[in-house]
Amino acid sequence: MRRTSFAGWPCAVARTMDLLGDQWTMLVLRDCFRGLTRFDEFAASLGIARTTLTERLDRLTGAGLLARVRYQSRPPRYEYVLTDSGRDFLPAMAALMRWGEQWLMDGDLGTTVRHTDCGRDGRAVVICSSCGQPLENGTVHA
Amino acid sequence: MRRTSFAGWPCAVARTMDLLGDQWTMLVLRDCFRGLTRFDEFAASLGIARTTLTERLDRLTGAGLLARVRYQSRPPRYEYVLTDSGRDFLPAMAALMRWGEQWLMDGDLGTTVRHTDCGRDGRAVVICSSCGQPLENGTVHA
Repeated sequence: MRRTSFAGWPCAVARTMDLLGDQWTMLVLRDCFRGLTRFDEFAASLGIARTTLTERLDRLTGAGLLARVRYQSRPPRYEYVLTDSGRDFLPAMAALMRWGEQWLMDGDLGTTVRHTDCGRDGRAVVICSSCGQPLENGTVHA
Repeated sequence: MRRTSFAGWPCAVARTMDLLGDQWTMLVLRDCFRGLTRFDEFAASLGIARTTLTERLDRLTGAGLLARVRYQSRPPRYEYVLTDSGRDFLPAMAALMRWGEQWLMDGDLGTTVRHTDCGRDGRAVVICSSCGQPLENGTVHA
């Protein structure tokens, strides 16, 4: 399928979706946050075609969110580990998950998110770095 | 292209990407947050094929993020307005934008986000609703 490239658009949302705007890439990243690092672990977790998984891991590696690291020499084996930019995506992922929990889960299957720093269940709240108040529609101007 | 449906997966990220996991849907939503409501406004803003735009607006309407409202009777004309669930996506969008600003914009074309409640430029910070501390990789367990 022909894809329009948003990589050069002067918009952070467009560039982010150019990179992550498909069904699988975000789920690979989700599994990275769960601690998965190896091809076969992602394949088993997602039930994804191997060619598709290879493409998505290559994309995330090429974009610098994952690093491909050799963990065994003979035969050579690689794992995929989050880089600084990959780890820094966790807040956005948490905010996406919070929205999905609220509006798409029908209250039946909701994942509980535990914040290990405080030991309590919590949800992601997005605030303004200047005033600490929640960012809400109508209060943000780009 | 055949699409794997994630709509029934017991995971909020999977369900969210089932809905928004393509290149265009998130950009249509971005334009909704900028105040656009009419088909021709979205078409002009995005340079998107009309059939594609129709499909994305139908998807967002079907999923309940947008409501299709008639604003003129003869001839009938409709606009697309954010619902409660659509407006509630703003925090996740702000968090995505913050990540993209930091890692994909090369410092050259960054959008400044102004929080109109406090009148200052800010960035989105994602915190835990229980303790108020930033959610970071390694501190969240689903």
